[in-house]
Amino acid sequence: MDIHTLTRDLNLDNGSKIVMLVADGLGGLPMSPGGLTELETAKTPNLDQLATRGVQGASIPVKPGIAPGSGPGHLGLFGYDPLKYLIGRGALEATGIGFELQEGDVAIRCNFCTIDDQGRITDRRAGRISSEESAPLAISLRQVKIPGVEIFVEPVKEHRFVVVFRGPGLAGNVADTDPQKTGVAPLAPVALDAASAKTAEVAKEFLRQAKALLAGHPKANFHTMRGFASKPSLPSYKEVYGLKAAAIAVYPMYKGLARLVGMDIIGSAQTLAEQIDVLRDNWEKYDFFFIHFKYTDSTGEDGNFDEKVARIEELDSLMPAIDKLGPAVLIVTGDHSTPSYLKSHSWHPVPTLLVSDCCRPDPHKTFNETTCITGGLGQFEAQYLMALALSNAGRMGKFGA
Amino acid sequence: MDIHTLTRDLNLDNGSKIVMLVADGLGGLPMSPGGLTELETAKTPNLDQLATRGVQGASIPVKPGIAPGSGPGHLGLFGYDPLKYLIGRGALEATGIGFELQEGDVAIRCNFCTIDDQGRITDRRAGRISSEESAPLAISLRQVKIPGVEIFVEPVKEHRFVVVFRGPGLAGNVADTDPQKTGVAPLAPVALDAASAKTAEVAKEFLRQAKALLAGHPKANFHTMRGFASKPSLPSYKEVYGLKAAAIAVYPMYKGLARLVGMDIIGSAQTLAEQIDVLRDNWEKYDFFFIHFKYTDSTGEDGNFDEKVARIEELDSLMPAIDKLGPAVLIVTGDHSTPSYLKSHSWHPVPTLLVSDCCRPDPHKTFNETTCITGGLGQFEAQYLMALALSNAGRMGKFGA
Repeated sequence: MDIHTLTRDLNLDNGSKIVMLVADGLGGLPMSPGGLTELETAKTPNLDQLATRGVQGASIPVKPGIAPGSGPGHLGLFGYDPLKYLIGRGALEATGIGFELQEGDVAIRCNFCTIDDQGRITDRRAGRISSEESAPLAISLRQVKIPGVEIFVEPVKEHRFVVVFRGPGLAGNVADTDPQKTGVAPLAPVALDAASAKTAEVAKEFLRQAKALLAGHPKANFHTMRGFASKPSLPSYKEVYGLKAAAIAVYPMYKGLARLVGMDIIGSAQTLAEQIDVLRDNWEKYDFFFIHFKYTDSTGEDGNFDEKVARIEELDSLMPAIDKLGPAVLIVTGDHSTPSYLKSHSWHPVPTLLVSDCCRPDPHKTFNETTCITGGLGQFEAQYLMALALSNAGRMGKFGA
Repeated sequence: MDIHTLTRDLNLDNGSKIVMLVADGLGGLPMSPGGLTELETAKTPNLDQLATRGVQGASIPVKPGIAPGSGPGHLGLFGYDPLKYLIGRGALEATGIGFELQEGDVAIRCNFCTIDDQGRITDRRAGRISSEESAPLAISLRQVKIPGVEIFVEPVKEHRFVVVFRGPGLAGNVADTDPQKTGVAPLAPVALDAASAKTAEVAKEFLRQAKALLAGHPKANFHTMRGFASKPSLPSYKEVYGLKAAAIAVYPMYKGLARLVGMDIIGSAQTLAEQIDVLRDNWEKYDFFFIHFKYTDSTGEDGNFDEKVARIEELDSLMPAIDKLGPAVLIVTGDHSTPSYLKSHSWHPVPTLLVSDCCRPDPHKTFNETTCITGGLGQFEAQYLMALALSNAGRMGKFGA
């Protein structure tokens, strides 16, 4: 049973505000045995002050031991069981570049490749062709025309681009054309169910025209298609929580994920300080605000411990400005850990802080990977955080009489 | 959704080694209020040193409040949901005596009993006949011959023995013949589905011949059949984790359980020191090693607190020899608690320690029932331990992009 079964029935509207600040990849690790994590190293007087008033815990993004990508990481925080709501690769790639998928669209990740004169793949990624060279090639594929289907082609990065088919009767269950090895021809797109037969036909025609358009190009004379996916169908924040929700994010991926759950994307902030300006300017218009801070993740991915510490301190410095707006519930969390030591997303639970006037504070006066273990929220799966947020905001009635 | 759905897709092979040392029944209780547990009483300098480098937590074998047998206890540790993968009683009994079940076999637990001249049961366990008296009787039943079916009869202990039928068209869904009371005749074996019709017929003929062979024996002149069960079908460690796995165990039950998940049984060690020799000798040949230490359980079952303490100290003394081999991940845990105070398996969470270079150590510098409560792994269901092991070993990619 999904937590939404309860939140749908029990949610109340009392006009209170909830702010969820997601510091992407917040959790970390010491760089050497006996050392401190990034969050333990950072000077965070404002978070510590909030910790004194709040309750903390360790959020498990998916299940113990599972490191999530941004998609499942955020769906979990948004309260959507990340093992139930799967976002297909093509749909996530489109979302990541800010392409607004519509119901019925099919999105496909494409890789430029090279083929020899017998049509056999010689390089599955076209030598990781530069974005500068590949973008015009992708745009040239907008010349492909197929009757009855609207086609979008968007460059991504290096050898990657996205194709979206829009039209009646399309479904996303089509096999990849990438044979996963060189020396053989790409596979034909094969429908894996009856509903996807038209998509496979459209893909085949797209590939035929693309081959002609790319013929003779020295760097990339063909492409493969992978991760065919329909727009994921997620119930909205309004439906499942009764919340009018807004997202204040800088990067397309996080705007896209928020859009999938029906949040409005507001502002055009480029820094956290600007994001908080957007929050302030829209305070009266929404019940729920998702603020996404990217740099705790990107610095971790770079293995730059000191810079991650600095970014946490930047975040800390802006906490009073959020707190001053007086949200009923203020949450600071992350979608996963990104320890500088590992230079990647990890499975470690994420320090999570919740402040409200009725949160039952725990005794901690700091906030980090060590304190959160023994915080009042314990270890919990991220998908329950929204229920905690609603209850702490007085926005949820009791279950059963 | 089963954790294997994720581990199957996400596992990577980086050549690293994982050692899981299972101290059977590790968790305990104080013998009197305010006292210490066995693990708290034992001097464990080596485990304490590992605790300083590692992360600990409390493993819940099945669900809170559920004391498992060895079967579900180990399946949980091996990462198989013990409520999904049920091992039928007959199959567990056969496994426990080291009988190697094959696909399609049906195993049955049998109890010697006594019947009167009207065929009514007078003692359902034949006065708990001694093993010395019952073993030759069980062996005499090997004279039973049924065309088209290979039959194995193996003595177990006291009134118990195992029968295995092997041949085409057998399934294990047959009702027990034990009427659970005296003064009535044993029941006929009744097939509970069409696929098990032949098994029921074979069982009926077995019982007919057995009755003739046992007729007139003063201590046990008949037997019942219970827990008909096919060989459980479990996906292998190779399939679900990509691991080449070996078991180093002394007792048949644990070898049998390991075999069910596709581990190789290696060595013929009789002591823990010898088990570690086997580990060392096979270090290069496997990715994963399950080492089973029985005596923390058997001493607990005996209610022998001091001896359990001594066995824990024996275990502790051998930790450096394992650590020295340099596993990427070293786990010390138990399949359940066996407090000397209760003289039985119990439901209490099991102290569990995981050491790796990226485990995010918690502040604990000792390892026991009290420290594990506030360890960095929190309380977790045993079935997630393998996902944690794989991730800590760098053997698992991220879920979703």
